[in-house]
Amino acid sequence: MVGKWHLGLGANGSFLPVHQGFDHFLGVPYSHDQGPCQNLTCFPPDTACFGTCDQGVVPVPLLLNRSIVQQPVAFPRLVPRYTKFAQDFIADCARRGRPFLLYYASHHTHYPQFASQGYAGRSRRGPFGDALLELDGAVGSLLQALRDHGLDGHTLVFFTSDNGPETMRMARGGSSGLLKCGKGTTYEGGMREPAVAYWPGRIAPGVTHELASTLDILPTMAALAGAPLPDVELDGYDLTPVLFGQGPSPRQTMFYYPPAPSKALGVFAVRQGKYKAHFFTQGAFHSDTTPDAACHGLTPLTPHEPPLLFDLESDPAENYDLLQSSTAPSPVVLRALKEIQMQKMQFDQCMVFGDSQMKKGSDPALEPCCVPACTPKPSCCRCP
Amino acid sequence: MVGKWHLGLGANGSFLPVHQGFDHFLGVPYSHDQGPCQNLTCFPPDTACFGTCDQGVVPVPLLLNRSIVQQPVAFPRLVPRYTKFAQDFIADCARRGRPFLLYYASHHTHYPQFASQGYAGRSRRGPFGDALLELDGAVGSLLQALRDHGLDGHTLVFFTSDNGPETMRMARGGSSGLLKCGKGTTYEGGMREPAVAYWPGRIAPGVTHELASTLDILPTMAALAGAPLPDVELDGYDLTPVLFGQGPSPRQTMFYYPPAPSKALGVFAVRQGKYKAHFFTQGAFHSDTTPDAACHGLTPLTPHEPPLLFDLESDPAENYDLLQSSTAPSPVVLRALKEIQMQKMQFDQCMVFGDSQMKKGSDPALEPCCVPACTPKPSCCRCP
Repeated sequence: MVGKWHLGLGANGSFLPVHQGFDHFLGVPYSHDQGPCQNLTCFPPDTACFGTCDQGVVPVPLLLNRSIVQQPVAFPRLVPRYTKFAQDFIADCARRGRPFLLYYASHHTHYPQFASQGYAGRSRRGPFGDALLELDGAVGSLLQALRDHGLDGHTLVFFTSDNGPETMRMARGGSSGLLKCGKGTTYEGGMREPAVAYWPGRIAPGVTHELASTLDILPTMAALAGAPLPDVELDGYDLTPVLFGQGPSPRQTMFYYPPAPSKALGVFAVRQGKYKAHFFTQGAFHSDTTPDAACHGLTPLTPHEPPLLFDLESDPAENYDLLQSSTAPSPVVLRALKEIQMQKMQFDQCMVFGDSQMKKGSDPALEPCCVPACTPKPSCCRCP
Repeated sequence: MVGKWHLGLGANGSFLPVHQGFDHFLGVPYSHDQGPCQNLTCFPPDTACFGTCDQGVVPVPLLLNRSIVQQPVAFPRLVPRYTKFAQDFIADCARRGRPFLLYYASHHTHYPQFASQGYAGRSRRGPFGDALLELDGAVGSLLQALRDHGLDGHTLVFFTSDNGPETMRMARGGSSGLLKCGKGTTYEGGMREPAVAYWPGRIAPGVTHELASTLDILPTMAALAGAPLPDVELDGYDLTPVLFGQGPSPRQTMFYYPPAPSKALGVFAVRQGKYKAHFFTQGAFHSDTTPDAACHGLTPLTPHEPPLLFDLESDPAENYDLLQSSTAPSPVVLRALKEIQMQKMQFDQCMVFGDSQMKKGSDPALEPCCVPACTPKPSCCRCP
């Protein structure tokens, strides 16, 4: 695994990838804005990172497996280092004739944006564009590594992204295009993502409107690898029929939880086929600053009975509530609504919530520090 | 010329294409919602047109050159008829070895949407999608006609659209995607259009960010044909450097007028390079119903001093005014602002307004009627 965010370390590093089934890890164990960044360089030779990032915590470290190899992390050299690590891993697996799973979870284009020498200032889109360009370059390098080792015809490459632009960062936070709102909401702008599945000779070029979720990646990979599924409750489906054009998606329904789910409210929205019903809506500070007030942080939690109901095929922007139209809803629409209401009830009834890790609070002793004897943290946590 | 809208007839049909330099015309002489449509069929076999359209006027006629050939027009048979007319024209020009200009101004996807037998109900996007699908099919038929006559390597095909979705029609009115507002406003959603220039062997496949306007089509076509420009003031540029990858666009500036321009206010917005300044903004009823109040019909004319200033490369949605940012505008931004202000002043000073045709009022006697002796119009204006 390369990159990643929000894992944390846990006691004895138990949350780290190498304790969770991965053989190797190079990355930042939490989001790369979770550390002071005002003195860091984001773009070579000397452009400081934009904004403040979190304060009063250790500088952002880079970990190799369990060990800190850099603190604070050097953003302008990070992607070349990630790419080389991934290329070496592919080369090593190829040499040994071993199948592999590489999970490359890029920090691009999350805030603060950064880029290395080859990409800084190259786009017309400012820092966000430079970061996106570097991500594109990294993907190209990985595909080239597969080709170099003759593995491109034997490897499924699946590309997707984290959910929702952070419009509170304005032009530096990305855009959800025509989709409503962004990060932190259960509107499409906070949930829908691009995805590309690439396997020359196996997957026919084309576009699909079938429904799929990142929850489906694990069962799909396991099915392709002939690996057993873990003995836990999984919400995903095997997407191989969609990938290989053999049939419709086994996923017909998607359940949308807000960032802080609760048993009391249950799921906020449900999509079934082309219809999506919102039972609760709420703005998010991450989705501030665009003209749609429904997205904003001060827009409170609002229950909807009947729900807001949208046809996402003709109205992906969730602008036109089918139940508030000037014409009465058609029998087809009313049937879809009833089916969705039943799906929500069943889902809420059988949902078992795990223990909240967030509610356990934070322990500064677990913050990774390059200088074990450093006291008081965080300022002395630095290594060359 | 095929299709078209909003030409009107004028005294003795003087506004018609055959009196304005075109040899042939098959089309509707005004917009196809400018006639009652509630009793018309829009989709075969019998789906009535959606909405009411204009009332108290003659049914929408179809004209061939100067003559009415159908009234009311049969929407579900219109595009096949247009396409055959255009194919025959191409075939005739090819047979005679004569160069030609074909201007195919489709009514799709304007309200009310319609489609013929081959397209009705085929898209996942409802009536709007069916109309768009038929437009796509018509373009394909024209390209095929060029290939059939060996003309595809000798013909510039230029595809673009009319300006701005009519969001007051909700999902039936289209979408401007991430662009702000729609029809009737001087925001990008009301002005920016897709465009494709296709000439196999002459135009290299690719995407350009160079600035261009439909005002540039006439000078470009004239330059390619070696035809003299008319002896009038033209606002367009010859775009051949952009088409053939020979250099930057000669157009660096775009001036945005509202639907009802006035000498008193002058131009509403100016784009220069990647910067766009709004000196006046105003909503439009055509842009109603989406969440952005700036677009709506009741949002009044508002002067801006200093103007609203946007960087359209990083913020095509016109969300983030560079002069209202938390950080002071850079010297580059301030220089761009000053240059735009000067451009506006010069443009407003030298602009000469033509006489308003709208202010001359309407004359029901000029409404095209299949039954010359019909009285009182409009109901008796029908031909088989």
